[in-house]
Amino acid sequence: MKTIVKKFGGTSVGDVSRIKAVARLIDTYLSTHPGERVVAVASAMSGETDRLIALARSCVAKPSARELDALVTTGEQVSVALLAMALSELGRPAKSFLAPQIAIHTDAQYANAQIMQIETERLQSELASGVIPVVAGFQGIDQQGNLTTLGRGGSDTTAVAVAAALKADACYIYTDVEGVFSADPRIVRGAHKLAAISHEEMLELAGLGAKVLHPRSVDFAMRYDVPLVVLSTFKPGPGTWIIREEELMEKPFVSGITYRLDEAKVTVSRLPQVLVALPRLFEALSEGQIFVDMITQTGVVSGRTSVSFTVPDEVSERALAIVQKLAPDVGAEGATLDRDIAKVSVVGAGMRSHTGVAARMFSVLSAEGIEVGMISTSEIKISVLVARKYCEVAVRALHDAFIGDGLEGSVSLSVER
Amino acid sequence: MKTIVKKFGGTSVGDVSRIKAVARLIDTYLSTHPGERVVAVASAMSGETDRLIALARSCVAKPSARELDALVTTGEQVSVALLAMALSELGRPAKSFLAPQIAIHTDAQYANAQIMQIETERLQSELASGVIPVVAGFQGIDQQGNLTTLGRGGSDTTAVAVAAALKADACYIYTDVEGVFSADPRIVRGAHKLAAISHEEMLELAGLGAKVLHPRSVDFAMRYDVPLVVLSTFKPGPGTWIIREEELMEKPFVSGITYRLDEAKVTVSRLPQVLVALPRLFEALSEGQIFVDMITQTGVVSGRTSVSFTVPDEVSERALAIVQKLAPDVGAEGATLDRDIAKVSVVGAGMRSHTGVAARMFSVLSAEGIEVGMISTSEIKISVLVARKYCEVAVRALHDAFIGDGLEGSVSLSVER
Repeated sequence: MKTIVKKFGGTSVGDVSRIKAVARLIDTYLSTHPGERVVAVASAMSGETDRLIALARSCVAKPSARELDALVTTGEQVSVALLAMALSELGRPAKSFLAPQIAIHTDAQYANAQIMQIETERLQSELASGVIPVVAGFQGIDQQGNLTTLGRGGSDTTAVAVAAALKADACYIYTDVEGVFSADPRIVRGAHKLAAISHEEMLELAGLGAKVLHPRSVDFAMRYDVPLVVLSTFKPGPGTWIIREEELMEKPFVSGITYRLDEAKVTVSRLPQVLVALPRLFEALSEGQIFVDMITQTGVVSGRTSVSFTVPDEVSERALAIVQKLAPDVGAEGATLDRDIAKVSVVGAGMRSHTGVAARMFSVLSAEGIEVGMISTSEIKISVLVARKYCEVAVRALHDAFIGDGLEGSVSLSVER
Repeated sequence: MKTIVKKFGGTSVGDVSRIKAVARLIDTYLSTHPGERVVAVASAMSGETDRLIALARSCVAKPSARELDALVTTGEQVSVALLAMALSELGRPAKSFLAPQIAIHTDAQYANAQIMQIETERLQSELASGVIPVVAGFQGIDQQGNLTTLGRGGSDTTAVAVAAALKADACYIYTDVEGVFSADPRIVRGAHKLAAISHEEMLELAGLGAKVLHPRSVDFAMRYDVPLVVLSTFKPGPGTWIIREEELMEKPFVSGITYRLDEAKVTVSRLPQVLVALPRLFEALSEGQIFVDMITQTGVVSGRTSVSFTVPDEVSERALAIVQKLAPDVGAEGATLDRDIAKVSVVGAGMRSHTGVAARMFSVLSAEGIEVGMISTSEIKISVLVARKYCEVAVRALHDAFIGDGLEGSVSLSVER
């Protein structure tokens, strides 16, 4: 008998009528898939977590991390109880389960806990007796039984972890989009939904700005080999499967073109002794809790080297201040900030076996007269910085060149699920 | 070292500013009582439980009992997390604890669970390390770890049960009144706050309409010998101590005069065979889940007996219908309902050793021209039914006769706490 985990995010359970719609969706699924059992995972109703955090901040200036987690976990508790009620009313026996009840063990890092282990005894016995377990996402308990939360993307991670623990056949992530697209459909008219991509591609896409799935949950799914599918709660459709690369029948050269606008570039100019300077610069940024993404250094000119790196835009002023303060010590001429950038990326598992993607990418951009700033590469992606005003043109040109108006069928699943 | 449990009801934690006021109250108490440790117990913010129940009912017509309990326990979870935050901000280390965390074991009767056992290990270790445990009232877990709620008066019961388990020195119940009064101050000008009464008296008072404490928590306090004190969150004062009768220095003849207007009287007329009829009538009422309070039968007239009983007003029509349906079978002439009644009671532990209270009560009422309907007595109270319009007059006359404008000092504690 197949077991399927189905996860519903905040907008999917955004109000009582949507919770009832989710219950009907599960009911219909079970009616049309007689050999399957479902475990539901739900987030808090959208806006609820923010409301609770605001309540805490209206009470005290700096809420204790332990109590903030105890407070915000009520958000999921409300939605899973309501969803279980709604399922029961449709004649589908259901029970809500909170982190302490099943139990979802995490480390003790409040607000950003890592799942260590999920016990399956209770879930298995409920499933065996025909009950739909409705599991609260985002929450866990540490060794002392304190409530913890998993941080951003937490409910996706809960769903994947529950699926891994139960050795479920698949984990369905219901969102407000129909799946993963070859590019942002608001920018590229020819962008199409992908039928399937590999975990690695999804990780690159997630990290590069496709907001469908949090990288943590994809990483978890890859490590525990959980087949994921991303699909819409509101519009029926097959969604996008995220599966092992080996299972992809045909590896497309390039699966998608992504972009992000939330980074800024800092440049430290003309360092005399780059080997001494670099560690000092990046240690200082690390101490400042600043996450650095791309890093490049320009060729040596008159014995001096310039270094550029990108950071999240919201900390870019702070990053600049840190390196400006260090500049005299390391002999740099100064530091500058450029917030007017976009990062455009080409992602595809097929790159592993095809060469020349970078060359073609540069030639496409060059033909559009778009200058490329920094470059970074991994096995399955190439990212470049361009001036922000050229972002849309670059994405469109790259989509036309690498993907075109290809039909969805160009990417197909090797296995019928 | 003394341990004190302090319980704060829904109005006491009604909003963020009140939660902060409660934190300051505890802070001040600890500053002025250096040898003591405090465990706080809190209800949901007032209105929150009702809001959650309404949310459930907006989702489904008949919410499952298990899920309704899972839903409403979030109310206490929010208030204890906020109270723990507020205490921490005042420099008083505090941690919230939910039922599964400490653990508060109950039976599996959702919405009306009974506390079976409370484990104290975690609470004791937190207290030993200088932490103020802030315990969620009203909630428990059954043997399977399902969340349960304790029903009406639940948070008071949690507080008393925690105090009993910890063998605490006292349990302070903070409410929006200053204590227990000798009569309703809105009716009797001379009514005064009692310094102390026995558990038994409080049980009678609670059962008779004084809404200060739920009888369940008083019963619990009596059985486990927990000294209780009822006092105001908003107005400093010593409150009313509820202690063992033996500890009362002086047992007043009569402690208080109470009344309730929420009962109605049903009379079944002229039963020919009362021994056969009575069991059938009261079995039928019991099957109808109707709680009967007072019962009397009139003397035999022409071989026939009439029986009257009181029931909660909101089920009185249903009770009437039940006995009317049975009337032909048991040979009764008919049944009538009188909703225009009041139950007035005189309560006092001193009655045990004083005779003549009933006689004096009847003579006082007679002097006012008030006819007495049904009568019921216990060791420490006498209740009579009067026409509703005479309720206030009866309460005032009885207060004048038995208690007068006595100063609070007339009742004093045998031990300094």
